[in-house]
Amino acid sequence: MQIIDLTQLIHPQMPVFPATDQPKFELANTLEENGFVEQKITMFSHTGTHIDAPYHMLSAGLTLDQIPPQHFIGPAVVLDFTTIDSRTIELEHIKQFQDQIVSSEYLLINTGWNQYWQKPKYFGDFPELSVSAANWLAGFNLKGIGIDTISFDNMNDPKFPIHHIFLNKGIVLIENLTNLASIPNQPFIFSCLPLKISNADGSPVRAIAMIL
Amino acid sequence: MQIIDLTQLIHPQMPVFPATDQPKFELANTLEENGFVEQKITMFSHTGTHIDAPYHMLSAGLTLDQIPPQHFIGPAVVLDFTTIDSRTIELEHIKQFQDQIVSSEYLLINTGWNQYWQKPKYFGDFPELSVSAANWLAGFNLKGIGIDTISFDNMNDPKFPIHHIFLNKGIVLIENLTNLASIPNQPFIFSCLPLKISNADGSPVRAIAMIL
Repeated sequence: MQIIDLTQLIHPQMPVFPATDQPKFELANTLEENGFVEQKITMFSHTGTHIDAPYHMLSAGLTLDQIPPQHFIGPAVVLDFTTIDSRTIELEHIKQFQDQIVSSEYLLINTGWNQYWQKPKYFGDFPELSVSAANWLAGFNLKGIGIDTISFDNMNDPKFPIHHIFLNKGIVLIENLTNLASIPNQPFIFSCLPLKISNADGSPVRAIAMIL
Repeated sequence: MQIIDLTQLIHPQMPVFPATDQPKFELANTLEENGFVEQKITMFSHTGTHIDAPYHMLSAGLTLDQIPPQHFIGPAVVLDFTTIDSRTIELEHIKQFQDQIVSSEYLLINTGWNQYWQKPKYFGDFPELSVSAANWLAGFNLKGIGIDTISFDNMNDPKFPIHHIFLNKGIVLIENLTNLASIPNQPFIFSCLPLKISNADGSPVRAIAMIL
């Protein structure tokens, strides 16, 4: 089984969503004093490559620990929008993928924006789905959708309309993916298992593609 | 694909290793103020069901982010020691499993001790491998070994001899597993992918069995 890592590295200088903090690592136990090395980690629930539960934006939405683990693994397809000449991914751009979408449980949206990780531009005018494209995708029987940008919604829209369209349908969202271009054009299984945290609104994940 | 969850729930009142702290969760963003719910999590790197990197106890050992993700997934077997009449798992107890061990990359040691999770007894006189049993197992071509107790070593031995035997061979260790008795007696794949944290001595994981 070939494994392709789709996860950004978590480290103290990594980019994080505005109004949240970068992760902190404090050495808590040492070889000399305790016989083992251990760190105290402080990080926000949506650090790095992470998953959003419906509860992230819906007061009556499910938390991650209320969703069975099967939900976080499934056949997937990469939708490549790296060559479209618009920053908005419109319905007309995605309709061509209908056959692959029907046979998938996860969609991974490759915009190529991960190339700006660690640069100010990463937070800028990144690609996004249009409302009509999102509504059309939300009509499929999907477990989740991932993207290689910091958010499914424009930074200037405090209402998060694209998040709401998907989370209302129980479709989980994975943000800050990377390396999507490395997935070969053949069937694969996507895994984004979250930590098993009580009442989790979100969790950093180790996202991978498994080529069977 | 059937998924069996082998992970203990992470929550503020969970048991943790002596001299480390329970995890803390602080509400950092709210629907009312920010339009989304997010928490600030503080937890030690070996909280709950977790993985130990060689670096946890060896100053020259690999950290988790230096190990390729393929290492954390592989064919596995459960070794059932729930009915032996000794708290030490001796070489004679494990030799009967030689054929299954040869064809596995992960061994999951079922002692039944997970029944004491959240009870003082969980930290008590839990089952452990003998040094000769551990040395024999370390001679196989294994990626990792998991167990349903808080540690591979007795709480009264500050030298952690069993940890050292395995970590010296690059065999990663998974502790605080649960639910091992639910895995059916048929081939399965074990997954214990860690978070992708820079210089990680360990990481909480979502451990699962995938029945193909």
